[in-house]
Amino acid sequence: MRALIIGGSGFVGRNLASFLASRGAKLTVLDRSSDPLGGLDGVFLEGDAQDPRVVVDALEHASPDVVYHLAANSDISAGIADASLDFGDTLMTTIAVAQACQVHPIRELVFASSSAIFGITSQPISEHSQDFYQPVSWYGKAKLASEYVLQDFSNRNKDTSVLLVRFPNVVGPKATHGVVYDFLRKLRSDPSKLQVLGDGYQQKPYVHVTELVAGIEHFRTNMSACELDRINLGPSDTINVRSIVDEVLAATHIDAEVHYQDQPHGWIGDVPKYEFDTKKMQAGGFEIKKTSRQAIRAAIEDLLVEESIP
Amino acid sequence: MRALIIGGSGFVGRNLASFLASRGAKLTVLDRSSDPLGGLDGVFLEGDAQDPRVVVDALEHASPDVVYHLAANSDISAGIADASLDFGDTLMTTIAVAQACQVHPIRELVFASSSAIFGITSQPISEHSQDFYQPVSWYGKAKLASEYVLQDFSNRNKDTSVLLVRFPNVVGPKATHGVVYDFLRKLRSDPSKLQVLGDGYQQKPYVHVTELVAGIEHFRTNMSACELDRINLGPSDTINVRSIVDEVLAATHIDAEVHYQDQPHGWIGDVPKYEFDTKKMQAGGFEIKKTSRQAIRAAIEDLLVEESIP
Repeated sequence: MRALIIGGSGFVGRNLASFLASRGAKLTVLDRSSDPLGGLDGVFLEGDAQDPRVVVDALEHASPDVVYHLAANSDISAGIADASLDFGDTLMTTIAVAQACQVHPIRELVFASSSAIFGITSQPISEHSQDFYQPVSWYGKAKLASEYVLQDFSNRNKDTSVLLVRFPNVVGPKATHGVVYDFLRKLRSDPSKLQVLGDGYQQKPYVHVTELVAGIEHFRTNMSACELDRINLGPSDTINVRSIVDEVLAATHIDAEVHYQDQPHGWIGDVPKYEFDTKKMQAGGFEIKKTSRQAIRAAIEDLLVEESIP
Repeated sequence: MRALIIGGSGFVGRNLASFLASRGAKLTVLDRSSDPLGGLDGVFLEGDAQDPRVVVDALEHASPDVVYHLAANSDISAGIADASLDFGDTLMTTIAVAQACQVHPIRELVFASSSAIFGITSQPISEHSQDFYQPVSWYGKAKLASEYVLQDFSNRNKDTSVLLVRFPNVVGPKATHGVVYDFLRKLRSDPSKLQVLGDGYQQKPYVHVTELVAGIEHFRTNMSACELDRINLGPSDTINVRSIVDEVLAATHIDAEVHYQDQPHGWIGDVPKYEFDTKKMQAGGFEIKKTSRQAIRAAIEDLLVEESIP
C-alpha cells in the first residue's frame, strides 16, 4: 500500500507513520516542518499543505492509495489567541486537500477530526447526535468546518471513500503537547511545584496513540467502499486531571506542591468534560483495551523512557 | 413572500430590505447590531447568527420562504489583523445557518459570496473556472469555506434551493465601507490631501448595489427548484482606483493633493486586479446596465446626498 501522510511530522502523524511502515506500507510524508522520517523508510516532502498545488505535487509524487490528512494546529490555546492558526493550518489545509484530491483522484481519504467539534455536551457523544455542533474553540470550529468540506468532497467524488475519525485526547510516545507532556515538562523545569490549568476536575477520555492508529486502520480497511463514514475513536471511560497529576507524581517519584485554578476549564476554549458513546465503534468490531487511566500511565512511561521532554 | 435577512443591517442587507419591502415582501431582519429597519415595515430581531439556536428562533419567528444569509465581517483588512473576525462572523454564521435550516427546512437560501474566493487570477473569472481557489484574505477564505458548507447543505437538503452569488466590489447608498466611502470620509476630515492605499492601479469591477439586489432577485426567482446555483454578479468591465479618485474629486469640487503608495495592493489580502466573465449572468437573462465608472459616479452622488459620511 502507498500512503501519503499530510502533517506526518506531528504527534499522531509520526506514530501513524511507524505503524504503517511496520506493516510494509510505502510512505510519503508531507509536512511543513523539516523533520525527517525518524529513521523510517520513505519519502519526506517539505511543504505547506495550505497550498493545493503543493498537495497536488505530493499526490503526483506519491501516487497514494490512501491519503491521511493530519495537518493541523494542535495547540488549542494558541489558536484562541490567534484564530489564524486554526483557520490556516487546520481548515485551509483541508480545503487544499479537497481541491487537490478532486484533480488527482484517490481511493481513500482519512481525516483527523476531533471531539472538539461537539463543544459543551451533557450526554456521551455519539456519531448520531441530533444536537447542534457548537465548538467553543477555533480548533473545534476549524475541525467542524473541515468535516463540511470533506462531506461536500465526498458528495462530489463518489470514487473516494472518506473516513472522518474524531479523536478524544491522545497521549503516548513522540508527543509534542498535551497534559502528560505539559506536566512532565513543568516538573523538569521546577520539581518543587506543579501549576495545573483549571480546577483539576476536567474529566475526559484519553486514548493511547498506538490504539488510536490501530483503530484508524481498522476502520479504514473495513469501511464501505466509496462512502463517507464517521467514527468517534476512544475509550468509553474518562479520567480527571487530578488523577492524572497523581499518576505523574507517582511515576516520577516527585513530591511537588500542586496548584489548581478556580475555573473549571483549563483555558478559554477548553471543553472541561465530555464522554464518548462508543457503541458504533464497538459494533464496528474495534475495542480500545486501555482505560483512560491505563493510557495515561503508559504515556507517562513512554515519555520518561524516550527522554524527549525539553 | 416572507423573507428573513440574516445580517440585514449591513450595507447590502439594508438595500436588499428596501428592495424587497418595495415589492411587498414581509420582512424579518436578524442582526447583531441594534440598528432598526430604517423606516421599513418588518420585524427586527437582535442576535448573533453564529449561534444556530438564535437562527432557529429567527426561522420559527419569521417562517420565511426565503433566507438571505448576508451576515459577515465586511472589513477585509481588519480581518487580516484578526482572523477571528472572518472565521466567526462570516464562516461560523454560515455553519449556524446550515445547521438551523436543516432542522427548520426552508424553500430557498441565498448566500452572499464574493469574488475574493478566487484570489489572484489572470483571466476573467467564470463560474466554471478549473483553477484552484486560493483566496488571499481571511475574508475570501471564510467565504470559500462557506460555499463548501452550503454545497454540503444542498446535498443533504434536496428540498431547498441554494443560490451562491459572488459579489464584486459593491458601491451605493447606505454604504458603511468601501473605496468611495473611504475617499469621501478622508476628504471630509482633511480636504487638502487624499492618501490612497496602493499605487492606484488596482483595477476591479464595481456594481451599484441597486443593480446587485435586482440581480439577486432575478436569479433567485429564476433558479431551478431544489438545486444549487452559482452566479458571478457584476459588470464585465473594470475601473482603476486613480479614475475613482478623479471621479470623487470632480464630484466634490475638491482640489486635494493625492498621495499613492508604492505597492500594487491596497492592503495585505487585497486582490489588486480581477475581472468577471459575465457570460453565465447574461445567458441567465440579466444584465448590469451601469459600467463600473457609472456605478462609482452614482455611488458618489448617493453618499453626498444622504450625508451619512462621518
